[in-house]
Amino acid sequence: MNDKGDFSLNCPVPISDYAEIILAHGGGGALTRQLIESTFLPAFSNPILDALHDSAILDLNGVKLAFTTDSYVVRPCFFPGGDIGSLAVSGTVNDLVMCGAKPLYLTLAFILEEGFSMRDLRRIVESIKVQADRAGVKLVTGDTKVVDKGSGDGIYINTSGIGIIEGSNVISPQRVRPGDSVIISGDVGRHGIAVMAMRESLELEKPIQSDVASLDRPVLSLVEAGVDVHCLRDPTRGGLATTLIEIAEQANVEVCIEETSVPVSDEVRGVCEILGFDPLYIACEGRFVAFVPEDEKERTLDILRRDPLCSQARVIGTVCEAKSGIVTCKTSIGGTRVLDMLSGEQLPRIC
Amino acid sequence: MNDKGDFSLNCPVPISDYAEIILAHGGGGALTRQLIESTFLPAFSNPILDALHDSAILDLNGVKLAFTTDSYVVRPCFFPGGDIGSLAVSGTVNDLVMCGAKPLYLTLAFILEEGFSMRDLRRIVESIKVQADRAGVKLVTGDTKVVDKGSGDGIYINTSGIGIIEGSNVISPQRVRPGDSVIISGDVGRHGIAVMAMRESLELEKPIQSDVASLDRPVLSLVEAGVDVHCLRDPTRGGLATTLIEIAEQANVEVCIEETSVPVSDEVRGVCEILGFDPLYIACEGRFVAFVPEDEKERTLDILRRDPLCSQARVIGTVCEAKSGIVTCKTSIGGTRVLDMLSGEQLPRIC
Repeated sequence: MNDKGDFSLNCPVPISDYAEIILAHGGGGALTRQLIESTFLPAFSNPILDALHDSAILDLNGVKLAFTTDSYVVRPCFFPGGDIGSLAVSGTVNDLVMCGAKPLYLTLAFILEEGFSMRDLRRIVESIKVQADRAGVKLVTGDTKVVDKGSGDGIYINTSGIGIIEGSNVISPQRVRPGDSVIISGDVGRHGIAVMAMRESLELEKPIQSDVASLDRPVLSLVEAGVDVHCLRDPTRGGLATTLIEIAEQANVEVCIEETSVPVSDEVRGVCEILGFDPLYIACEGRFVAFVPEDEKERTLDILRRDPLCSQARVIGTVCEAKSGIVTCKTSIGGTRVLDMLSGEQLPRIC
Repeated sequence: MNDKGDFSLNCPVPISDYAEIILAHGGGGALTRQLIESTFLPAFSNPILDALHDSAILDLNGVKLAFTTDSYVVRPCFFPGGDIGSLAVSGTVNDLVMCGAKPLYLTLAFILEEGFSMRDLRRIVESIKVQADRAGVKLVTGDTKVVDKGSGDGIYINTSGIGIIEGSNVISPQRVRPGDSVIISGDVGRHGIAVMAMRESLELEKPIQSDVASLDRPVLSLVEAGVDVHCLRDPTRGGLATTLIEIAEQANVEVCIEETSVPVSDEVRGVCEILGFDPLYIACEGRFVAFVPEDEKERTLDILRRDPLCSQARVIGTVCEAKSGIVTCKTSIGGTRVLDMLSGEQLPRIC
């Protein structure tokens, strides 16, 4: 809220006055943050939680751990390029690696709706297994609840994860410095558009594949090579724009990006144009943003591009001096716009 | 399944043939186990998972941790004596302490249904806070998803937890030995009957209060006093009977209990008699069973009874020599019956 407390100008009523939960409270944008800041943080505040990182960082008798949780409610639960199972594993693995942790152990909790197909459940379990093996994580405990028909939507999955942080390098928004280069690991918006196109039964020549993937390999390559990574984050709900705004605010810097540098595939751009979406706000599930010192940028790109997941990695901007907590975007026609956090819900139930 | 593979005799079709999820798959009884054994264990098998303890036990660079997860879908979300928030904290805290771990950190993931009352959410958050403070655990990370109206039931919560195991004493079903005393920490069935009575709008003189409570204090008192506790488990879904059967099977022993020794309040017994339920199968959320060597039984009772949560603690049976993996129950009229795992669903959505 702080220096961008202009929500009431965009909303019909002050957002704190909602008497009921609306979809946008889960969208990852301004209302999600408002819910967290008005309801959760005041109740539970402690230094670990207040860091609002992708994972909590814990010190247990000298062992440094990352600990994270996410529930997955994506609809439909199968989509081109993945399903709720691969998403649940890679999403949680990615939250761990964004803190520089090596992912080790996951939990797996299902909320199944009465009548859900056993065959679909087995397909999802198989997909979880494949993705967990690929990321080298073990599923060590779980839970299964069943709710009556009409009280769910087939399947919801929660995965929580533990990873170990071995190096001494701290990766967090607080380490972002003016002069840092901002790197994106690949083209943006595939996941959100893949799910949305399927949900809306868009007739595309070739279905757009989600980018869903576990990012442990490329990220740990950077860490192991000793690159002094300042900050990492995966642009999921709310997309690249929201992620950059969060980091700019937490680091109290201005992030300046060039719109034309952000890789967007022709198919994703096409669907976005037809439907009036901005690709910068569309969720990815297999991409990340890295903030690295300017003199580490070439090495970072070299290491990343060796990994097929990051072959399109490129610099999209820099961190500017100003202490404003905003993101500016140089547009394709040469102007500059300030990116706003979404105040509504663009694409519900994308993850 | 193993030595009690008689499910097909009780079920109209072999249970592995279900094409769809039914409520009983989440009931904690035979079908839950069948789902785990036929679908989850074959995919994810590893020594940590296969232990099927209340928490996974992890060794991280020499630090011994317990790690657990549970989703909570109780309906209604407020009930006499508690709510989904107090349940979500105490349920996860209890899974940690049943392994002898000191609970430290919890995650908190909400799946909210569009239209859920913000006021109810705040009440639940407050209840989570109170319960977490009481158990001395910190909420360190979270997640919020919102699903469209009709795809949820107000609120579902997942809590995962980490605890640290400091002593060298291993608490697990594998340590149960013939001669062990079986102790229950208090009267059984309150939670299930409290929720059910409310759901069915039973007109009771005085509403039955759920026993929902965090059990860290009494359990850690035993551990800290150096009692050689062999096994602990909280009888949640499926009740005391199911819990004892699980342990008897895992330890490959016969557990012999006396029905008249099991404390059941008059109110719970009354409702059970009216509705034809067996209190031994009704969920508790603030009780536990302890298996201790016979010569530690008096000391265990002394320590437990000092805690108001366990003032009714008493010995309900012993572990017999036979390697049969069954539970026998001496009934009030002097006969003996073998307790069966429930093959259907008695009380859905109790936790």
